Amino acid sequence: MTQQRYKVIFQPAGRQGWALPGQTLLDVARELGVYIESICGGHQTCGQCRVEVVEGDFPTFGIHSSAQHLSPPDEGEQACAERCGLKPGQRLACSARVQGDVVIHVPEESRLKRQVVRKDATTRTFRVHPALRLAYVEVAPPRLEEREGEWERVARELAQRFGYTAVAPELDLLRDLPAALRQGERHITLTLWQERRGIRVRAGFHDDLYGMAIDVGTTTVAGHLVHLRTGHILTTVSAMNPQITYGEDIMSRISYVMQHPDGLTRLHRAILDGLNDLIREATDRVGLSPEDVSEVVLVGNTVMHHLLLGLDPTSLGAAPFTLVRQDAVDVRARDMGLDILPGGNVHILPCIAGHVGADNVAVLLAEAPHRVEGEIHLVIDVGTNGEILLGNRESVYAASSPTGPAFEGAQIRHGMRAATGAIERVRVDPQTLDVRFKVIGEERWNNEWPEDALDAFDPAARSRRHRHRPRVVKARGICGSGIIEAVAELWRVGAIDDSGRFVPGLEEETPRFLPEGTKGAFVLAWPHESATGEPILIHSDDIRAVQLAKAALYAGAKLLMNRRGITSVDIIKLAGGFGTTIDPVHALLLGMIPDADPARVRAVGNAAGDGALMALLDREVREEARRLARWVTYVETALEPAFQEEFVAAIPFPHARDPFPHLAPFLEAAEPWRSQRRARAQNARRRRRRRK
Amino acid sequence: MTQQRYKVIFQPAGRQGWALPGQTLLDVARELGVYIESICGGHQTCGQCRVEVVEGDFPTFGIHSSAQHLSPPDEGEQACAERCGLKPGQRLACSARVQGDVVIHVPEESRLKRQVVRKDATTRTFRVHPALRLAYVEVAPPRLEEREGEWERVARELAQRFGYTAVAPELDLLRDLPAALRQGERHITLTLWQERRGIRVRAGFHDDLYGMAIDVGTTTVAGHLVHLRTGHILTTVSAMNPQITYGEDIMSRISYVMQHPDGLTRLHRAILDGLNDLIREATDRVGLSPEDVSEVVLVGNTVMHHLLLGLDPTSLGAAPFTLVRQDAVDVRARDMGLDILPGGNVHILPCIAGHVGADNVAVLLAEAPHRVEGEIHLVIDVGTNGEILLGNRESVYAASSPTGPAFEGAQIRHGMRAATGAIERVRVDPQTLDVRFKVIGEERWNNEWPEDALDAFDPAARSRRHRHRPRVVKARGICGSGIIEAVAELWRVGAIDDSGRFVPGLEEETPRFLPEGTKGAFVLAWPHESATGEPILIHSDDIRAVQLAKAALYAGAKLLMNRRGITSVDIIKLAGGFGTTIDPVHALLLGMIPDADPARVRAVGNAAGDGALMALLDREVREEARRLARWVTYVETALEPAFQEEFVAAIPFPHARDPFPHLAPFLEAAEPWRSQRRARAQNARRRRRRRK
Repeated sequence: MTQQRYKVIFQPAGRQGWALPGQTLLDVARELGVYIESICGGHQTCGQCRVEVVEGDFPTFGIHSSAQHLSPPDEGEQACAERCGLKPGQRLACSARVQGDVVIHVPEESRLKRQVVRKDATTRTFRVHPALRLAYVEVAPPRLEEREGEWERVARELAQRFGYTAVAPELDLLRDLPAALRQGERHITLTLWQERRGIRVRAGFHDDLYGMAIDVGTTTVAGHLVHLRTGHILTTVSAMNPQITYGEDIMSRISYVMQHPDGLTRLHRAILDGLNDLIREATDRVGLSPEDVSEVVLVGNTVMHHLLLGLDPTSLGAAPFTLVRQDAVDVRARDMGLDILPGGNVHILPCIAGHVGADNVAVLLAEAPHRVEGEIHLVIDVGTNGEILLGNRESVYAASSPTGPAFEGAQIRHGMRAATGAIERVRVDPQTLDVRFKVIGEERWNNEWPEDALDAFDPAARSRRHRHRPRVVKARGICGSGIIEAVAELWRVGAIDDSGRFVPGLEEETPRFLPEGTKGAFVLAWPHESATGEPILIHSDDIRAVQLAKAALYAGAKLLMNRRGITSVDIIKLAGGFGTTIDPVHALLLGMIPDADPARVRAVGNAAGDGALMALLDREVREEARRLARWVTYVETALEPAFQEEFVAAIPFPHARDPFPHLAPFLEAAEPWRSQRRARAQNARRRRRRRK
Repeated sequence: MTQQRYKVIFQPAGRQGWALPGQTLLDVARELGVYIESICGGHQTCGQCRVEVVEGDFPTFGIHSSAQHLSPPDEGEQACAERCGLKPGQRLACSARVQGDVVIHVPEESRLKRQVVRKDATTRTFRVHPALRLAYVEVAPPRLEEREGEWERVARELAQRFGYTAVAPELDLLRDLPAALRQGERHITLTLWQERRGIRVRAGFHDDLYGMAIDVGTTTVAGHLVHLRTGHILTTVSAMNPQITYGEDIMSRISYVMQHPDGLTRLHRAILDGLNDLIREATDRVGLSPEDVSEVVLVGNTVMHHLLLGLDPTSLGAAPFTLVRQDAVDVRARDMGLDILPGGNVHILPCIAGHVGADNVAVLLAEAPHRVEGEIHLVIDVGTNGEILLGNRESVYAASSPTGPAFEGAQIRHGMRAATGAIERVRVDPQTLDVRFKVIGEERWNNEWPEDALDAFDPAARSRRHRHRPRVVKARGICGSGIIEAVAELWRVGAIDDSGRFVPGLEEETPRFLPEGTKGAFVLAWPHESATGEPILIHSDDIRAVQLAKAALYAGAKLLMNRRGITSVDIIKLAGGFGTTIDPVHALLLGMIPDADPARVRAVGNAAGDGALMALLDREVREEARRLARWVTYVETALEPAFQEEFVAAIPFPHARDPFPHLAPFLEAAEPWRSQRRARAQNARRRRRRRK
């Protein structure tokens, strides 16, 4: 006599199989490899495993599916349905028992691997399948005739209810276990890493689980604090990299390590302190504690990667640019010195090669040129090191370009990072050379500010009204995108020539130009528009710094294009974590990117940060990252003679050699004032030459 | 065309197989699963893989074996042979290439799993197959066209040369790697744990590897420092458990934790400090540093086990005596707070049940009653907790008995632990009541000491000759075996009665008896025999403490015998780490063990420490320990009503109820003085009773 069995089909996975009468849907799903979320392992506590019956006839399967073919909701399920807000028709898979053939729909939110879409600067889809899992366990009270310990009892539940048979508890967990069992009346929630390391125990039921994805830049450190089960970003924080006091770029940091016996320790300590402050700021903001963060994913260039781990970066300073470790690293937070959950995990994405780091891998993950069929994509991540990717499904070339920190507001007289008060947008009137600007934290451009906000700066007045909300957020400095636009606009209107010098006679045209020998500066914001009461300027030296930075990016991109034997690309993506996104036209005006139709240039925000976030939310992305890091073709710019040559040619605006036909329509509006000023510069140059 | 192949046979393993011409013997051995030691993985550096050719005809295999069938020693092998002292006829398996059929003998010292025999209190055989291995690696210099990091290069060598494909480096190792590669000119030695965790890197070639096995007793902590590759004990150290200031037995330690908010932290810190001091003492003695210790195996009772790990032992204080963790624990030294190699491992043997700990498992490993066919063995490990095992191959019962610290010299007026100056042997003359004793660190009994050493104590005299070696080591106190013998001897000669009281009128017989009301004390060593100038006494209270201790041991043993339904055992083993071993006759005189022929009672020294050592030296023993911990039948003495009853009956000497026929011959010599004194006591008791 064969036992009665029923057919169960799970949609949209399409898996089908047989169930014994009375088996729960969760059980059947597990047997069929259908991954349904469950924190409580079938205690009708978490309400995560909600499913729906698809009713009707399914001739292909030869069955009739009906809600009547499941056991009716029992008390536990009814209580949970109310508490967790189950929709009509939804059932708990852990409670509903099979009594006939059924077709079951597993909604997205109940899937163990689910997708969430974020609409931000760019719309991205993240898959949520974190390395961390929660497991709610009800532990039977100990009895005298049992010799096993409390942990063994917990381990048995994990094996029976969840199928996790190899969980090793951290010592911290064992230490906290007796109190948690007592306080939770033997109901506890465990946090597990990769289902094999027990890293936390809490009394009672919990469904919150947090992580941070942090992009550790040479100049700026920026992180997202996220709920690991929902993929929801709770807050985003950023700060200067405190290592900046030891050198502004990676080479000067390496020098510092080489020249000081405690240099490595200092730089390691500095970035750890910085990260710990950042994590505390993020958790404080949303009422959590750093201990609530169970995992952190870090990305950074190879020097940041080494300094984060306390590894000597000296060998990265000279050929053959040897990494101490290339592959991804998983290290316990306590071992690294990161103040999150001590047994929590820190994952650092792999490096590609000596000068091509985990940040490049993160950009690759986020922008995925390797998934593009046909079209060639150029991805440029603007930072103190520019990370450049070029290619498509066939092959992707990667390089790192020593941009310098200009685009992150460092090495710029009034530069600042993208924070409230930073000028992020600039427009210069071609005729009057008047300036309009927009500041982070203020919706209106400065010419739309109310009259009374434009009073001359008066500290006493400020203190009298300090309890009132200020009428406008005034300017405090210029951030990356503001610097790009300011310089691009000055060149567009002809106030600076192709070599980056202010044209002669500007002081007669506008009080905004402040001559200073052969140099000079241009006022973006007047004292009454600034929060400090001092004018905010773009100085000749700032323009020079921008030229070197954009030349490095352009030369890097050009080098990869030459390698691949192409002279133009189909899509350009501009990434960078500096406040607002870079305007494609201004990037073209500067000659920061190869000539292209601006419609084919896309600003994609903080791609490295998003790549880190993807790896944080989905454990499988980490494996993909390791594969990609080995698959990508890397180009070592530091050793390419052609790089130096391309770099020099890219210093003038927009370029000494390469044509930029797509720029013409954007220069038109500024004529004839532009021509006039450029002619003046040419004459002056000729005169000088004759005098010599 | 088939390729030429040769037959290779390895002895004594008896494995045989085929080799290609030119294959090294080490390669062939690996393919056949013959484990030959090699640190250098075939670089002819370590000289570990020495083998011998067995020459002659082997008709069973149909081959002729000859030394000529191996390639002659090349330069590398010749250099190594000289440096490492290869015997004539010995070859390096990594260098000798197969050129014909050979039979190869692998000597014991070349085997990966080898045996060493130690002759000590007991002769024991230890198998050496530690969890740690050394791997000497020569790392190719990095080249520009390679993207891999230094660690990836090392990992590739480990995979190719040793077959270790899954070694994860500790962060410390990565941090030390660049300097080690530089200093060792790219030759390094790695320390690996279980072939999967890289825990140390050193520049150049090294073949030393150290570990410690420590028995953490409630009162005494004792450890062996050993060379893990040879099994050689470098030194043995012991000290008081510093937790003793928080309570003398495990129950008082639990109370301390319950009554003080920081009690757990204090006790945890105290034992860690104690262990760290002990490890430093051991390494200092032999010119090593604590960082050279790569692994520690710890055993202890369940409360020590919990306090070592910082786990709350409160639940062990009351039924159902719940452990937080029963199974064996592997934890990194850094996480536990043990100052050895930070990435080194600490292994704690499993507990059996609430009151039956890892020390019992260790005794089980060392004495192995579960391997005995037929005969019933009783093993008693005397400590502040008595660990008791009873049984044979069929079944073994285990219990723990609350002995108290008397046998470790605590709770005894002049008690001390087994160290230089401790009285370890005592004989009392039945007629004169004169005392002979022997002190640890002094070969001669006190009656053999030179006359001039017996001068009255004179501190000034001592300081005058302090630069000379003292003529004798005088007594400083009494250790466990001395206490046992002193009390047993006093009862044997009739100076104390069965209830443990001094008999009346002793003060008239000997000046050694110092009356004190109804109590009194007996002088073992006169002031001139003592290092302090004060007499060393056995006080009535000390005798009482010994009675309670021996009664607990006897009752525990009796309980297990009753459980198994037997009234006598075949072999009794007395273990304990107190200086010298316990004398079987004196143990019987006290009634510490059930009656038996003294020839069937064996003193086996520090069995728990030896069990820990076995687990340290052989990773497979750890698996056996886990298996045994689950297999053994445990008896919870604290909850057995019969235990209390047996305990009370065992307080008198030798027992209130059970006969000790085997004692008769040992009492004979003391007659008639014994009878006379016992009669005096009986008369006195009668008189007292009449007076009331």
